[in-house]
Amino acid sequence: GDPGAGRKKAIQCQTCHGLDGLSRIPEAPNLAGQPEIYLRKALTDYKTGARRNEMMSVVAPSLSEADIDDLASYFSSIRIEVTPP
Amino acid sequence: GDPGAGRKKAIQCQTCHGLDGLSRIPEAPNLAGQPEIYLRKALTDYKTGARRNEMMSVVAPSLSEADIDDLASYFSSIRIEVTPP
Repeated sequence: GDPGAGRKKAIQCQTCHGLDGLSRIPEAPNLAGQPEIYLRKALTDYKTGARRNEMMSVVAPSLSEADIDDLASYFSSIRIEVTPP
Repeated sequence: GDPGAGRKKAIQCQTCHGLDGLSRIPEAPNLAGQPEIYLRKALTDYKTGARRNEMMSVVAPSLSEADIDDLASYFSSIRIEVTPP
């Protein structure tokens, strides 16, 4: 996937997931720094219906395989650092 | 949930998700800093079978509601910072 193209396509994700990949609503996960393989599978599963969610099941079916690759590439390219509690 | 109790219970999660909530394998997501509500739903869905995964569908059914609350509380309490690409 192309992270630059993914960033542009991520406009449609930002209300819930943030363009920086940090969740804006409690029901949505952070996507920043998630493994690319995990993100690709999540989007593919929402597209096929293997995984279901009120919002994602509406959005994902319109994504092409290239869209999924680009989005997974973009969000996985965001670096995260953690501070244990 | 009790994040301290969750940390102890998270021992069983660490091979794939890291005790710090950072994924150790490409198929597993980071859990650090995920919204508590999201994590609670993910574990509950794996427990009930609404969501399926080779590993999680084996592990989640044995978790009690208190286990789920504690684990969600622990992983959500880890702070994350992001650096855009």
